[in-house]
Amino acid sequence: MNRRKRFVIKGCQILTMVQGDKPFVGDLLIEDGYITRIAASIDEQADHVIDGIGKVAMPGLINAHNHAGMSLLRGFSDDLKLMDWLDKKMLPAEARMTKEDIYWGTMLSAAEMIASGTTAFADMYVQMDAVAQAVVDSGMRAALTRGLVFLEDDGGQRMKEALDLIESWTGAGDGRITTMLGPHAPYTCPPQPLKEVIDLARSRKIPIHIHLAETVEEVEKIRERYQKTPTEYLHELGLFAGNHVLLAHGVHLTHADIKLLCGMSGGVSHNPVSNLKLACGVAPIREMIEQGITVGIGTDGAGSATTLDMFAEIKAAAWMQKLDAGDPTVLPAEQALRMATIESAKLLRIDSEIGTLEVGKRADLILIDLNKPHLQPVHDLYSLIAYSATGADVDTTIVNGQILMQGRQLLSLSWEETRLEAAKRAKRLVAGL
Amino acid sequence: MNRRKRFVIKGCQILTMVQGDKPFVGDLLIEDGYITRIAASIDEQADHVIDGIGKVAMPGLINAHNHAGMSLLRGFSDDLKLMDWLDKKMLPAEARMTKEDIYWGTMLSAAEMIASGTTAFADMYVQMDAVAQAVVDSGMRAALTRGLVFLEDDGGQRMKEALDLIESWTGAGDGRITTMLGPHAPYTCPPQPLKEVIDLARSRKIPIHIHLAETVEEVEKIRERYQKTPTEYLHELGLFAGNHVLLAHGVHLTHADIKLLCGMSGGVSHNPVSNLKLACGVAPIREMIEQGITVGIGTDGAGSATTLDMFAEIKAAAWMQKLDAGDPTVLPAEQALRMATIESAKLLRIDSEIGTLEVGKRADLILIDLNKPHLQPVHDLYSLIAYSATGADVDTTIVNGQILMQGRQLLSLSWEETRLEAAKRAKRLVAGL
Ligand SMILES: [Zn+2]
Ligand SMILES: [Zn+2]
Repeated sequence: MNRRKRFVIKGCQILTMVQGDKPFVGDLLIEDGYITRIAASIDEQADHVIDGIGKVAMPGLINAHNHAGMSLLRGFSDDLKLMDWLDKKMLPAEARMTKEDIYWGTMLSAAEMIASGTTAFADMYVQMDAVAQAVVDSGMRAALTRGLVFLEDDGGQRMKEALDLIESWTGAGDGRITTMLGPHAPYTCPPQPLKEVIDLARSRKIPIHIHLAETVEEVEKIRERYQKTPTEYLHELGLFAGNHVLLAHGVHLTHADIKLLCGMSGGVSHNPVSNLKLACGVAPIREMIEQGITVGIGTDGAGSATTLDMFAEIKAAAWMQKLDAGDPTVLPAEQALRMATIESAKLLRIDSEIGTLEVGKRADLILIDLNKPHLQPVHDLYSLIAYSATGADVDTTIVNGQILMQGRQLLSLSWEETRLEAAKRAKRLVAGL
Repeated sequence: MNRRKRFVIKGCQILTMVQGDKPFVGDLLIEDGYITRIAASIDEQADHVIDGIGKVAMPGLINAHNHAGMSLLRGFSDDLKLMDWLDKKMLPAEARMTKEDIYWGTMLSAAEMIASGTTAFADMYVQMDAVAQAVVDSGMRAALTRGLVFLEDDGGQRMKEALDLIESWTGAGDGRITTMLGPHAPYTCPPQPLKEVIDLARSRKIPIHIHLAETVEEVEKIRERYQKTPTEYLHELGLFAGNHVLLAHGVHLTHADIKLLCGMSGGVSHNPVSNLKLACGVAPIREMIEQGITVGIGTDGAGSATTLDMFAEIKAAAWMQKLDAGDPTVLPAEQALRMATIESAKLLRIDSEIGTLEVGKRADLILIDLNKPHLQPVHDLYSLIAYSATGADVDTTIVNGQILMQGRQLLSLSWEETRLEAAKRAKRLVAGL
């Protein structure tokens, strides 16, 4: 990792992603992990100058919903029915995962995310010590959650692990790690233990990360059990009263459900590629946004999405809403890019620190190289980046002022070691399945 | 351009894309532009050996519907209503295009296509001498068509140009150029001139390339004029009787329309990204395929799709059909890849020459580098390539046995010159619009 204390990026096109700002050419000064100046020209002394000519500087992308350890199962069970995917493939393979497997799966995901311009992610998984260690080692930023299910038992051991994660890792990695409580989903969390988690989170001001209304089956299951929608179920347990909540998916919400979310702190991670690939449906994010609900973008795990490239999600989000609305003007490029940056940051409750390029914020940013056939000519930077760029166009990735990738070389981890460890472990996990 | 007469690619994973073939590790021998051997190991003498270890060899992708010259307008007018896009932006800018502009626009598209693994494309545009010259110069393969509209006048000059193209350029570039007749669309071609084109094409055995049922507005317009669907209109003029026809889009087809296409020679180019971005709708390609109609994949022009990356189209095609069917098993990865290769080749009527890796076929192929975080671990090559790879993962692009890109270096054209020419011309085209 490149521990430059003070450096300047010169001559780049700057997309601050602050609403109302127009792209402009300029320089950025980074000091001790913070953006300390943005100006047309910065001539101050610095340890190091990065040439930004022909590149776009923008905030790093923020993946608002991931299960990073699952990348070991990428492509293992695509094109299957959701229940076959889960029961015959994912769950048996995941049951074999050791703590070391999850460390290396997370390192693989970190390599992919850094290489495709993602600087922060929200993660819900198990063996979170391993995930946290991979976040510290890779140099990324993450909001981590131990997934909590209360079906087979009272969940006491998992709850203990969830609290241990919060106790041990909050603020680790120079403040790059934040933590949340992660009741998995309405259908895996009965009322009593779920209420206890919600109340605990409120009293300790810990954000909550939970899946919501991903599939029709989930909605039917909750309707059968409680004669409610999943959102009503969560609402009646007090989830939206005084908690900051990151809701993953929100595909099958009624108009009344969306009304219940109005005014909530947090919002919804839209995960369009996973929703498309698993044929879950089109999340009503236009209506949510109209109602003032924050909508960010996530990938969900590579086990379902196959790719963690947020540029694919940005495209899928915009395409899907245009199609669904029958209107090519909805969810324009700039808005889609804002969802993948500052709106996702709001969901992770770190928008005061990252998500836009502004003086005083942490230096979490990427440089996109425009010197590519598919990014020329330059009529509109937002269009090019949202509709034509891919993760491979990211030249430089910086988190907390540390350069994690430059000239497409991963600097904070050994790609060779990560690849070999991932390949070896992946083979063992799926043997015979 | 690398004019190696005889070379071997060694140690790659081979996806022949022949239905029923499984991936295997092996070598390919290329001689005088043809694939002459595929085997587990080839030790014959060759001018040159390409190291394929860690790479996937597969047929080059075939873009079945493009307007390559439009890349000069990439991103110029995204997120607009179709008619605003066309009338206020595209048409005025296109009206300024010179022959040289179209040459450089096509070179820019060629650079993009080569860099993203596309080896052949079907194109309909104007100033086709310029397009053909760019195809010859770039080393690509293309099926070229002069677009014919008969609204303002009798179209005589355009028809002359269409026939000149066929006369002058068929077989050029060592056989890389084929030609078609291109009546633009049902709504721009009245019955009498359209029937003449259809009859001429039949008698001279020239394939036809035509847009069909892209938008609801087109369907309504034809209904108003002729009390028919666009497909019925074309059918009654005899288009599907004895002609080879490449139909672009086919979004709004009725069940009866699809029946009319059964047994046709040629088929439909599905252009999912353009259909999504312009909110045209979901083409009923599952039903077409069930009915035995050939469905390939194209991008449409970069003016609407923004990207010419066929990997984006492959993803969009699979995602969109899964969503539309509510079933994640439809249009699996392998089928989507076959649509972008051999099925598109059938549409261009060159499937006896390209579209699969088979001995005796032209050496139009690509090598995809798997040594990337998002392409590891390797559980299923089809899934990785369809759902996670992008054009940037293509390491080597070969057309007609000529190496057009190796190690991501474009060899058949000057990228620097192309970029500068495109930028300069693009600026002039849109000035004041
Ligand atoms: Zn999830
Ligand atoms: Zn078209």
